[in-house]
Amino acid sequence: MTAAVIAPQQPKEHERLRLWIRILRVQRLIEGQLRERLKAEFDTTLPRFDVMAALYRQPEGMLMSDLSRYLLVSNGNVTGIVDRLVTDGHVMRAQRESDRRASIVSLTPSGTAVFRKMAAQHERWIDSYLAGIGEDDARHLANMLKSFRSEWERGA
Amino acid sequence: MTAAVIAPQQPKEHERLRLWIRILRVQRLIEGQLRERLKAEFDTTLPRFDVMAALYRQPEGMLMSDLSRYLLVSNGNVTGIVDRLVTDGHVMRAQRESDRRASIVSLTPSGTAVFRKMAAQHERWIDSYLAGIGEDDARHLANMLKSFRSEWERGA
Repeated sequence: MTAAVIAPQQPKEHERLRLWIRILRVQRLIEGQLRERLKAEFDTTLPRFDVMAALYRQPEGMLMSDLSRYLLVSNGNVTGIVDRLVTDGHVMRAQRESDRRASIVSLTPSGTAVFRKMAAQHERWIDSYLAGIGEDDARHLANMLKSFRSEWERGA
Repeated sequence: MTAAVIAPQQPKEHERLRLWIRILRVQRLIEGQLRERLKAEFDTTLPRFDVMAALYRQPEGMLMSDLSRYLLVSNGNVTGIVDRLVTDGHVMRAQRESDRRASIVSLTPSGTAVFRKMAAQHERWIDSYLAGIGEDDARHLANMLKSFRSEWERGA
């Protein structure tokens, strides 16, 4: 996207900017592929998959506000997705004992089973997209990006 | 997003999936920050910035269809953004000699000047977000992601 600011005659500079552009590009390409495949194979969307993935990670359930924060999207967007997942029987809502206004959402048993199937396929797709990156490189790369994140979030 | 499928007891597997999740996370966090800062400092949006960046890279101008393909978004979305950039005097349209139905868009001199200012600031932001990643690591990482992309695009 922002490749413009890189002049080809400056090969030893702008490394972080190059990296950012590359991250953006890879993310958009993979996300586009995932959207198509989730639609074709599971008749679902990436935001639905993301919500189910977050809930699968927390079998005891999540507050809507925590779910939104985790997904980095607004509460309003998540509400619509959760509503449809409830209608489909994949997600259930429960009231919290201590505060009846706050509802906790979690996967139903059938939602869990459906998600496991999608997650296994999703990982096969990711493995194939990133097949050119070895396990060790992938670990190293992920760790670099992870350390960046915690530093930055601490500083923010 | 899809952290759910990683069980903590399997630290030596799922490296590519971990990497993908990390890429997504970093991309969303940085993109969120960029959106806020572009709005606050330049009263502009990320899609506008992306369009100007693409056009800056091609001073001779681009066909709308090439611009859309480069940005990985639909032609319809780009048209609206370009329309507003034309109104603001940052972008101009010209007819191609050989095919008068195809218009070529490019930055105006004032659009170029405005973009240079934004791009310099944009790079400072990216440098500060990714400050925890050294230049060599950044180059290595970007190259890995770059090779993935070309392989995958060839295969698609």
